[in-house]
Amino acid sequence: MTVHSPEGFRVAGMHCGFKPAEKKDIALLVSDYPCRAAGVFTTNRVKAAPVLYDQAILAQPDAEIRAVIANTGSANACTGDAGLADTRATAAQVAARIGCQPENVLTLSTGVIGLPLAMDAVTRGVAALADQVNTVGWQDAAAAIMTTDTRPKIASVRHESGFTITGIAKGAGMIAPNMATMLSMIATDADVPQSVLARELTAAVEVSFNRIVVDGDMSTNDTVLVLANGASGVTIADGSAQEAAFSAALTKVCTALAQAIVRDGEGATKFVTLDVTGAADDSAARAIARQIATSALVKTAFYGADPNWGRILCAAGYAGIDLDPARLALWLVADDKPAIHLVADGHPTDYDERAAIALMQKPEWAVRLDLGLGNGAARVWTCDLSHEYVTINGHYRT
Amino acid sequence: MTVHSPEGFRVAGMHCGFKPAEKKDIALLVSDYPCRAAGVFTTNRVKAAPVLYDQAILAQPDAEIRAVIANTGSANACTGDAGLADTRATAAQVAARIGCQPENVLTLSTGVIGLPLAMDAVTRGVAALADQVNTVGWQDAAAAIMTTDTRPKIASVRHESGFTITGIAKGAGMIAPNMATMLSMIATDADVPQSVLARELTAAVEVSFNRIVVDGDMSTNDTVLVLANGASGVTIADGSAQEAAFSAALTKVCTALAQAIVRDGEGATKFVTLDVTGAADDSAARAIARQIATSALVKTAFYGADPNWGRILCAAGYAGIDLDPARLALWLVADDKPAIHLVADGHPTDYDERAAIALMQKPEWAVRLDLGLGNGAARVWTCDLSHEYVTINGHYRT
Repeated sequence: MTVHSPEGFRVAGMHCGFKPAEKKDIALLVSDYPCRAAGVFTTNRVKAAPVLYDQAILAQPDAEIRAVIANTGSANACTGDAGLADTRATAAQVAARIGCQPENVLTLSTGVIGLPLAMDAVTRGVAALADQVNTVGWQDAAAAIMTTDTRPKIASVRHESGFTITGIAKGAGMIAPNMATMLSMIATDADVPQSVLARELTAAVEVSFNRIVVDGDMSTNDTVLVLANGASGVTIADGSAQEAAFSAALTKVCTALAQAIVRDGEGATKFVTLDVTGAADDSAARAIARQIATSALVKTAFYGADPNWGRILCAAGYAGIDLDPARLALWLVADDKPAIHLVADGHPTDYDERAAIALMQKPEWAVRLDLGLGNGAARVWTCDLSHEYVTINGHYRT
Repeated sequence: MTVHSPEGFRVAGMHCGFKPAEKKDIALLVSDYPCRAAGVFTTNRVKAAPVLYDQAILAQPDAEIRAVIANTGSANACTGDAGLADTRATAAQVAARIGCQPENVLTLSTGVIGLPLAMDAVTRGVAALADQVNTVGWQDAAAAIMTTDTRPKIASVRHESGFTITGIAKGAGMIAPNMATMLSMIATDADVPQSVLARELTAAVEVSFNRIVVDGDMSTNDTVLVLANGASGVTIADGSAQEAAFSAALTKVCTALAQAIVRDGEGATKFVTLDVTGAADDSAARAIARQIATSALVKTAFYGADPNWGRILCAAGYAGIDLDPARLALWLVADDKPAIHLVADGHPTDYDERAAIALMQKPEWAVRLDLGLGNGAARVWTCDLSHEYVTINGHYRT
């Protein structure tokens, strides 16, 4: 995907000292013009300081945002009043450097919970970044927000009407429905009323970041921010055809970022699309898809390329949704092959086991489960659970 | 624990052909006298044939049970009407051999979902077991219901008033709150009215089998059965002091079996007790304890002996229960050492990291989380998530 820089935005990422060696660990996004902004945040009851801080700012209907500062290394969660003061001080430093008020700056943090922000590193980073921001710094910024990610995640759409949406994200583990330890910042040069921006972000997140599962954990820091500075001159009027175009473009960016997170899931060797159809309604389909995606037994079977369809039906059965086992149907689907029909009317067909294993050994494929009850459907993306996941998370801090 | 044989029961386990080589794979429990019986079953919507069969029998208030037949190798789940017919035929064979009606026989199955029962093996097994059952066969029966278990699980209590309760269980993975891929059959020679038996079993399961987590999956076959034949002559009258004694003994047997399942959890290297206190009520405490016990990130940190208390607070935060992060307190507790206070008022103390790691490297310890809100409390037992878990479940069928 080509990275287009939305007009009037500058961005950079660099090493300031949160991470060892020369790894980038702090990023800054600056808009030359005041932005409308919207955010979607973790629903975890334990919220990190930057989440509480951003939520308070975005609760103001007339909030004008000029910058987002993001660090890795410390999540600044469970750090109490001191942590909130550190977040405020970070925003104030950015504001002083770029010439705005602290309440025009949003913050993102990720990393180990409970570790205070190293404010000397922040000060060093903010000073340097304020000079470095430029229109081609997206890759550096995306690299700077990585934790256990193995590669930066960027998505960008330029719409024919003239606006651009470009976003970066990080996340590799602690990824559950309703977001996870993921951060994303998205910039657009469209001119979007705040109410439209908030509505469209919520809608886009619902079908993208809220549809991915790596390990089922949900972090204290999850945040998706979108900033709209209007520099392209394209206005997205409430309810207009342009809103539909903006919605589609934003959803495309969010979906690309969300899928990139799953593809880079901690230890993941497979990217699996779960389609649940035939449910009583969409929300029932979503609940079942998420339960399947979260099951350790399903995920280890994916890892082992074991067409153990019983585990999938079993996970569907404990999602808390009524279903009729005798109506269940299940397929394995890969792009280049006919679908393999594993289960019909709730019990196994005489499918070709070796073909099923061969399909599951590929890096990307899909599972389709039909409940035979109605028209509800949902799609969720997930990965397998591997030895490498255990290695990564068994010794994260050492 | 000494194994006492309840009077009037005979039991055996042997190899009939479900498993390779000479591994025991079928067990039979017979009572010389008709028993009152009660069962607690999986809440999975996809229920195996033996679950549906047993539930129908035990729905009869005057059910009289003479035997339980249990097999491993096939779960007889997702096998449709043919599976139910196989379960009925199994019961009928047992009934013919021991001289009762098919509706006096309960059934248990565990193993791969979707695989039909090999009825020739069943026939062979039932014929031999009917001759072999004896009063010292508990160990063989416990071995015969093992799947990925590494050791048989038996618990036995003889009460001073003269009754005995002895049970066996199996389960090692797919172990979640609200049971999991676990089976248990418990026999007592007390004389217990059916209503008392059902109530006491439900209560005992709630604080034992429903408080264990290995991987958070819940199977199609989970069943705990208790049979009471009255052969000891000790009567447990409804509401009597004897009922309290019976309740305590039954809870002791169930708790010992449940803990044995966690200790033998697939790939488990650590047995961890989670105590949540200070919750608004017990059910809130239970929800939080279960969420912590199910978190892949918490469980991998346990595996790595990493005192990553942030993951524990984080998991508590997404249990769907209101809490005040600033009131959270967390301790690591081992029998032979002072507790290590990791978190006070929601953020970390200056605890000794090396002492915390040393404590977590031990095979058994506890985590205590206090919410600082009320008097609700709950205890859950869990294990870590290891490389070996992934190995076991990545290639279960191969």
